Amino acid sequence: MSHIIKAGLVGVTGYTGMELSRLMTHHSSMELVRVTSRAEAGKKLADIYPFLHRLPLGELVITQPDPADLAAECDVVFLAVPHKTAMGIAAALLAEGVKVVDLSADFRINDKTTYEEWYDVEHTEPQLLSEAVYGLPELYLDQIMGARLIANPGCYPTSSILGLAPALSGGFIATDDIVIDAKSGASGAGRGAKVGTLFCEVADNFRAYSLPAHRHAPEIEQELSKLGGANMTISFNTHLLPIDRGILSTIYTKLNTNMDLDAVHAAYTEFYSDKPLVRVLPKGQLPETRFVRGTVFCDIGVVVDPRTNRLIILSAIDNLCRGASGQALMNANLICGLDIDEGLPMAPMMP
Amino acid sequence: MSHIIKAGLVGVTGYTGMELSRLMTHHSSMELVRVTSRAEAGKKLADIYPFLHRLPLGELVITQPDPADLAAECDVVFLAVPHKTAMGIAAALLAEGVKVVDLSADFRINDKTTYEEWYDVEHTEPQLLSEAVYGLPELYLDQIMGARLIANPGCYPTSSILGLAPALSGGFIATDDIVIDAKSGASGAGRGAKVGTLFCEVADNFRAYSLPAHRHAPEIEQELSKLGGANMTISFNTHLLPIDRGILSTIYTKLNTNMDLDAVHAAYTEFYSDKPLVRVLPKGQLPETRFVRGTVFCDIGVVVDPRTNRLIILSAIDNLCRGASGQALMNANLICGLDIDEGLPMAPMMP
Amino acid sequence: MSHIIKAGLVGVTGYTGMELSRLMTHHSSMELVRVTSRAEAGKKLADIYPFLHRLPLGELVITQPDPADLAAECDVVFLAVPHKTAMGIAAALLAEGVKVVDLSADFRINDKTTYEEWYDVEHTEPQLLSEAVYGLPELYLDQIMGARLIANPGCYPTSSILGLAPALSGGFIATDDIVIDAKSGASGAGRGAKVGTLFCEVADNFRAYSLPAHRHAPEIEQELSKLGGANMTISFNTHLLPIDRGILSTIYTKLNTNMDLDAVHAAYTEFYSDKPLVRVLPKGQLPETRFVRGTVFCDIGVVVDPRTNRLIILSAIDNLCRGASGQALMNANLICGLDIDEGLPMAPMMP
Amino acid sequence: MSHIIKAGLVGVTGYTGMELSRLMTHHSSMELVRVTSRAEAGKKLADIYPFLHRLPLGELVITQPDPADLAAECDVVFLAVPHKTAMGIAAALLAEGVKVVDLSADFRINDKTTYEEWYDVEHTEPQLLSEAVYGLPELYLDQIMGARLIANPGCYPTSSILGLAPALSGGFIATDDIVIDAKSGASGAGRGAKVGTLFCEVADNFRAYSLPAHRHAPEIEQELSKLGGANMTISFNTHLLPIDRGILSTIYTKLNTNMDLDAVHAAYTEFYSDKPLVRVLPKGQLPETRFVRGTVFCDIGVVVDPRTNRLIILSAIDNLCRGASGQALMNANLICGLDIDEGLPMAPMMP
Repeated sequence: MSHIIKAGLVGVTGYTGMELSRLMTHHSSMELVRVTSRAEAGKKLADIYPFLHRLPLGELVITQPDPADLAAECDVVFLAVPHKTAMGIAAALLAEGVKVVDLSADFRINDKTTYEEWYDVEHTEPQLLSEAVYGLPELYLDQIMGARLIANPGCYPTSSILGLAPALSGGFIATDDIVIDAKSGASGAGRGAKVGTLFCEVADNFRAYSLPAHRHAPEIEQELSKLGGANMTISFNTHLLPIDRGILSTIYTKLNTNMDLDAVHAAYTEFYSDKPLVRVLPKGQLPETRFVRGTVFCDIGVVVDPRTNRLIILSAIDNLCRGASGQALMNANLICGLDIDEGLPMAPMMP
Repeated sequence: MSHIIKAGLVGVTGYTGMELSRLMTHHSSMELVRVTSRAEAGKKLADIYPFLHRLPLGELVITQPDPADLAAECDVVFLAVPHKTAMGIAAALLAEGVKVVDLSADFRINDKTTYEEWYDVEHTEPQLLSEAVYGLPELYLDQIMGARLIANPGCYPTSSILGLAPALSGGFIATDDIVIDAKSGASGAGRGAKVGTLFCEVADNFRAYSLPAHRHAPEIEQELSKLGGANMTISFNTHLLPIDRGILSTIYTKLNTNMDLDAVHAAYTEFYSDKPLVRVLPKGQLPETRFVRGTVFCDIGVVVDPRTNRLIILSAIDNLCRGASGQALMNANLICGLDIDEGLPMAPMMP
Repeated sequence: MSHIIKAGLVGVTGYTGMELSRLMTHHSSMELVRVTSRAEAGKKLADIYPFLHRLPLGELVITQPDPADLAAECDVVFLAVPHKTAMGIAAALLAEGVKVVDLSADFRINDKTTYEEWYDVEHTEPQLLSEAVYGLPELYLDQIMGARLIANPGCYPTSSILGLAPALSGGFIATDDIVIDAKSGASGAGRGAKVGTLFCEVADNFRAYSLPAHRHAPEIEQELSKLGGANMTISFNTHLLPIDRGILSTIYTKLNTNMDLDAVHAAYTEFYSDKPLVRVLPKGQLPETRFVRGTVFCDIGVVVDPRTNRLIILSAIDNLCRGASGQALMNANLICGLDIDEGLPMAPMMP
Repeated sequence: MSHIIKAGLVGVTGYTGMELSRLMTHHSSMELVRVTSRAEAGKKLADIYPFLHRLPLGELVITQPDPADLAAECDVVFLAVPHKTAMGIAAALLAEGVKVVDLSADFRINDKTTYEEWYDVEHTEPQLLSEAVYGLPELYLDQIMGARLIANPGCYPTSSILGLAPALSGGFIATDDIVIDAKSGASGAGRGAKVGTLFCEVADNFRAYSLPAHRHAPEIEQELSKLGGANMTISFNTHLLPIDRGILSTIYTKLNTNMDLDAVHAAYTEFYSDKPLVRVLPKGQLPETRFVRGTVFCDIGVVVDPRTNRLIILSAIDNLCRGASGQALMNANLICGLDIDEGLPMAPMMP
């Protein structure tokens, strides 16, 4: 590299901002030069994140979010703020000529009306919807490399879409009988102070939530429909795990051919053969959230149940890393001309 | 009560034996007078379970398992030993005239061949299979009260069957399209020393296991088939939660009528109206494993997804209590003429 | 019992209120007839605590806290509200003729000035300080039985004082060289929505806090000084465990005689011989928080280190039960003429 | 670097072997070319560690431990086998001319008799004791760089010694009144199948163990005595935390001067000013195990209690990383002429 890419991060205090700070600590071709927070502006990053003491990144002073300043200093800006807040900032930054990777949901849904129904808010920048590229590199690599604005996928959608893509592309499952039973760690609920995510409410417990209509359903259906060539409606159901990080999706489908496990496994392996950040596990092995903890890997296991002729797909990611900040960095790497995995940890924290 | 029922427990060192010890501490009409363990015989119960210090039960001396001795001293004996070990002891105890509540799988499957296929062992006491009563009181109350031998249901089956019984009895779901996505706490894996259930392998992790053919499938299918009036095959899939206790089953079904949530909820409420140990939660509330922790409650929530015309049933139990020792005590109460809930805690440990 | 004691609970939404609800579910001589909460008044208790569905207590309607109403309906009232809020309610209730068990810190410190220094608030009811009885039954049984106002001890003080009482009474440790290293579960931090007690901030983590001056220090020193016959200053230091419930205090003292383990253990056993809710474990056994989970037991282990001539005392309680609501119920039992352990669970939740 | 250092690992199946595999995945100047296990020889590393799928290291075939083969292929060998097993392998490897970093306790204790007393085994290679260098780089940097055999420090000793070194070097605490209250995550107990470290025995629990004589005491005392210039005996006490990784030591000392917090903090900061892998936190901040999770940082906080004139030192490390494999890699880097932190992650996993 002849020069270092300069990056900004709007919204450093949440878990996705924290995770991006972690990842940027080891990136040798991209440097975080601006981090913003309305509440914490003026402090050094190590003041709010003691784990950054004695590291260069810890000395970075948090600023107020200012599009002009960000544009002046950065080549690319990550938005780690809530949906509805992100859309305006994205528009302002693009107007200033900076590339944007938006981790919120604001540009993921192509259809303005669908977005507004599910998120219950008016979309004020609809002119950007068609330009935004859905940042799932296994599906949209070329578009991402040429994009100005990346809609970074949701955590559940990343896990679900990567799990189903080979089967839908291959056309060997029914498109009208898919159930996704998804389980997520608590960091997916964010870092806001709420009774429901207190330690004593989450630990030693397991529960479903948002049934039967989680906001990630339309995003998943949009992408699956493109892959399946049909307007798909799925049953998508979410649960809260007493772990920090990790999503495991158990996906129930019906085979529409008489493929056996060998054939299904071969199709999956082939589909991802040139995409090294998705790992189709050997037959008989099943993914575990710990195997991807802290990495951008998506691990996939396939099971065929001959008693019911079902294909069961298990898909595991780290919701904060592949499901948010890690994938955002993959996308930033790509739009800045770097290798997709530059700076990203490949070995999970085990145990 | 004019006299105290005397009970024996064969196999006190596993988690179900431990749980039964906990429950018997507060039973005022039944007393544990014999506890056995080949490995720990000669010690006092408080020696291996320090939580029983200064309690009368802690002074009980562990003995070798001896059917004649157990029969001489006990009105009823609980078997908390592995399948295959239990069948012979059960037969010996019955021959001595003692009532038996068997927590193993040995008498749950009516059909000898099915048992032998799934458990990979010969059934040496097939003459008892027709006599054994499946100990799910919500379905078999009368038979249990007159039984000599109770086949105490498995943990997953208890959760699954209670969750599906109203819908199958009511005939409003398809019997050929049922998926059970079940998640269990680690105590279900037993107290044997295995790397796979070490703290560092289970904590901060989530994974599926035994896909697509967990041993509890035939037990569930046997009972569902009776309820549904058809030979049913289900998709039953199990996961390991990083919690001590609790099972949550998310059950996906297809409605075969145009019932709405109100109608489904009314059917469920009516089905369990005279069965106070199953709680159909108010519409909009979903069960959580903590709400039943340490109790024999089975909590059920129902969700109708109009987008896919699915009925989703959530069913939560404590796998050690309702799923094993607590239900065993319900059954022992019944066969000894006591109230079903005598001695059982009704308030869960929260948090 | 010829009649049922009627009890009220001011502040039902916190963890101590939740715990008292759990405990009262099984009390056969005392009934909760009033529960109050400004925020939740009008709802049934089962609406906010789904674990009480189908139980009589779940039907109780939450009311606004009203001293006159509480006095009209209750024999005894528990105050489970923060310090500073409790003192005024206590005074009003006493004026109406009701007995009060105050779970806050407001009446624990005999000296008004000390209270005001450590809690940074004016004490508005100093006239009650001399009347309030410190509700540690192992030390103040007689006074408690005749009291109108109980200052229910803090969680850390309960563990610390019970651990040190035999050694200080016996005079065999130095009074000027005591270090208490205390570790508590997260429920001790309360049920308020704070970032610091979110699941993702507490799980997989361990840290000290409030060093070197936790507010429970003066309460501990007050009681130890009475036992030790000297004005004692201790080093008291607190840590946050990633568990829901439980305190383990490791207490470092210097032996001032040449007692060996046998002699120390005999002294401890003798001290608590007629106090069955404190369990001095056999020599060689150490307490664990799980052995007391959900109970009012205080488990104590003693270790003598001949290399340093130290006596190390390990003391474990459940912070919510013995450290708060369970001890409050012990006290309420006593001031209402019931047995100290009536209605209280003796078998911990294991695992 | 003109060439890549070749490394071997004897004992890959335990947690320290697993951790070294994780760390070596990202090392660009050192490559793992041999990993051994008697039980798993013949398999690829990814077969036993699915988290290494699609990574080059995953393709490495596990071999039987053979000193001649290891010597032929490796520049340096890590021993991640139990004490007693390690000493013979170390001697054989040194005889073959390979450098050795031994993670066991076999060469940590300078005195043969002391080792044999505490570890209850004969030391068969005493001739190597004086040559072995204690691998704590903050204290023995020069010796390490010239060593053939590194005795990699124990986890507890690393935390304790780094915490006390500035105070003992500075001479401002009493050397005869030190209490170390140490708490460790469960990975410190190893990956052997034992009931005591099952998930259900460790989760939701906290307990002390090995009181009052943990095997790490003589190792700590040996090093502290060198720093303090006196023959020191300490009180060292260990506890088991329900977390995977992390040690927090709370160290109680008596100030022997009238230094205040500012002066103590300045002395600590100065002592570690040129040692960037120890972080003395700003005054008022306390270390947390999560701040060092997965890294080789040792975080230190200092607290002065004017009420008791005590200096309380908090010291946190990751027991598997700084306390074992990460420090081993620091040492290997040094003896191979690399920078101390090459290949090591600096950003902890948060949350």
